[in-house]
Amino acid sequence: MADLNFADRLLAAVETKGTPLCVGIDPVYESLPESITGHKELNDGEDLEAGVDAILEFCTKVLKVVAPHVGVVKINSAFFEQYYSYGVEAFWAVVAEAKAHGLIVINDCKRGDIGNTSERYAKGTLSDPEFGSMEEVEGPDAVTVAPYMGEDSVGPFIKVAKEEDKGLFVLVRTSNAGAAAIQDALLQDGTPVYQHVGRLVEKWGGELVGERGFSSVGAVVGATNPEQLRVLREMMPRTIFLVPGYGAQGGSAKDVALAFRGGKGAIINSSRGIIFAHKDAKYAGMPWEKAVEQAVLAAKKEIGDAIR
Amino acid sequence: MADLNFADRLLAAVETKGTPLCVGIDPVYESLPESITGHKELNDGEDLEAGVDAILEFCTKVLKVVAPHVGVVKINSAFFEQYYSYGVEAFWAVVAEAKAHGLIVINDCKRGDIGNTSERYAKGTLSDPEFGSMEEVEGPDAVTVAPYMGEDSVGPFIKVAKEEDKGLFVLVRTSNAGAAAIQDALLQDGTPVYQHVGRLVEKWGGELVGERGFSSVGAVVGATNPEQLRVLREMMPRTIFLVPGYGAQGGSAKDVALAFRGGKGAIINSSRGIIFAHKDAKYAGMPWEKAVEQAVLAAKKEIGDAIR
Repeated sequence: MADLNFADRLLAAVETKGTPLCVGIDPVYESLPESITGHKELNDGEDLEAGVDAILEFCTKVLKVVAPHVGVVKINSAFFEQYYSYGVEAFWAVVAEAKAHGLIVINDCKRGDIGNTSERYAKGTLSDPEFGSMEEVEGPDAVTVAPYMGEDSVGPFIKVAKEEDKGLFVLVRTSNAGAAAIQDALLQDGTPVYQHVGRLVEKWGGELVGERGFSSVGAVVGATNPEQLRVLREMMPRTIFLVPGYGAQGGSAKDVALAFRGGKGAIINSSRGIIFAHKDAKYAGMPWEKAVEQAVLAAKKEIGDAIR
Repeated sequence: MADLNFADRLLAAVETKGTPLCVGIDPVYESLPESITGHKELNDGEDLEAGVDAILEFCTKVLKVVAPHVGVVKINSAFFEQYYSYGVEAFWAVVAEAKAHGLIVINDCKRGDIGNTSERYAKGTLSDPEFGSMEEVEGPDAVTVAPYMGEDSVGPFIKVAKEEDKGLFVLVRTSNAGAAAIQDALLQDGTPVYQHVGRLVEKWGGELVGERGFSSVGAVVGATNPEQLRVLREMMPRTIFLVPGYGAQGGSAKDVALAFRGGKGAIINSSRGIIFAHKDAKYAGMPWEKAVEQAVLAAKKEIGDAIR
């Protein structure tokens, strides 16, 4: 168990590595380098376990490459859950691997349910395991949470965050096109739904503000609409933003710069643009791990230049 | 793979069993009957696998008791996920067990993410598995989905529903107290957010309307606010409602009757009140499986009387 407020730990990791860049681990079997899939096949009716092994091997190698350069990784749970219990086992192996490198791990699983059920999700997605063969394993440092069901659905995650010095990021304005139909709907006072949710998240974070003035209750705010990012940054001064949508999804470094307050308070996620850099013409002919490293360094520089 | 529209299959199952009651499988180790936990312990630092085995044994026995009386079960994924890969393995064993009894299985996991990621969730939570050792296993018949991220986050579940004759239930108005702060917020035209979401869900269901006039895209609408249930029933004529909150959460049979249109179009979930009936003073001294059966029959009668 950590013994320092999550927000403080996160900001310290950003400082130490000199970048708010977070590498997103969204492994897709079909996009893995051939040097890995060549000996571990996943085809229709073929061996599921071997396919998952290939993904685990890939993630392990990616983490080794990126760990010297960034302080935070976000593991996308869906890409593991699609392989059932085998995938979930691999998910926990990747968490352990990332923790062994000293990385801060965000479990991107977007859970949320009535209180009684959210308690179980908080246990399974955020807590340090307590039982049997999992007892030696540390849980992720933070988790992403869906807001639609309200405060009592988010509460159990906040409780675990408080008890185990962990954190959460509640969806406020997401980076996908379809988000607008619900998140941008205007309330009677002219506030869009996403700002209403943002205000609630800022309030929920009140009890978990660390020494650096930021809370362990963060928000997911997409990079794809810079104006919304700017407004939310003003409305939510103590909330750390986890910003997806940079790179492959279209958000530029200039856009994401709006997520910061005095150069602090945001982490910028890039997934496909980094872990699958070997598919980018820019890095053609390079060994895939070298391509990943070049992509991390390029993103680091680009974001660094934009927020300086 | 089924070859009949999910909505039609669901309504047929309700007709065959003569009840819209759905039994919720939310197993809690601490609440299991002693005859099961006595030989399979889950304690701090004790054997995780044995604890999960106890849960699986319990669920298997519950399914055997309820299968002759109801057509549908809802398995709450969180209660399995809290035990990591062991729990997920047990989840799939429970799905297989339920399908072997001919039950329609709803995977209550409330997923939702950007399209690219929702595709993975739809694969892992709803699709029939295609790979390796999972190839012989059938997936759940339907899944619950969170709406906050909008149409492109729900789309991949609709796609699987279409391709594999399955269904989904999108959260519209949930049964928990905290839901109001977001779901009841009023939009500029006076519509609460939950009705706005309800309209979207009714629209999304357009392509999947079966022969009985209901869509395979359903909605989760709590039993705890009868007036909202009534309004939504009017606004969403072709949407099947999955109604939680009956029984342990406080919704009465009279309340849930408002979810129906001409006696059709809703299924009513009860979890704790049925599977843990052995803890109810009413059934004291009875073998636990007898208590479960009595509780199913009582709920069936109560709901049947209210909607007649």
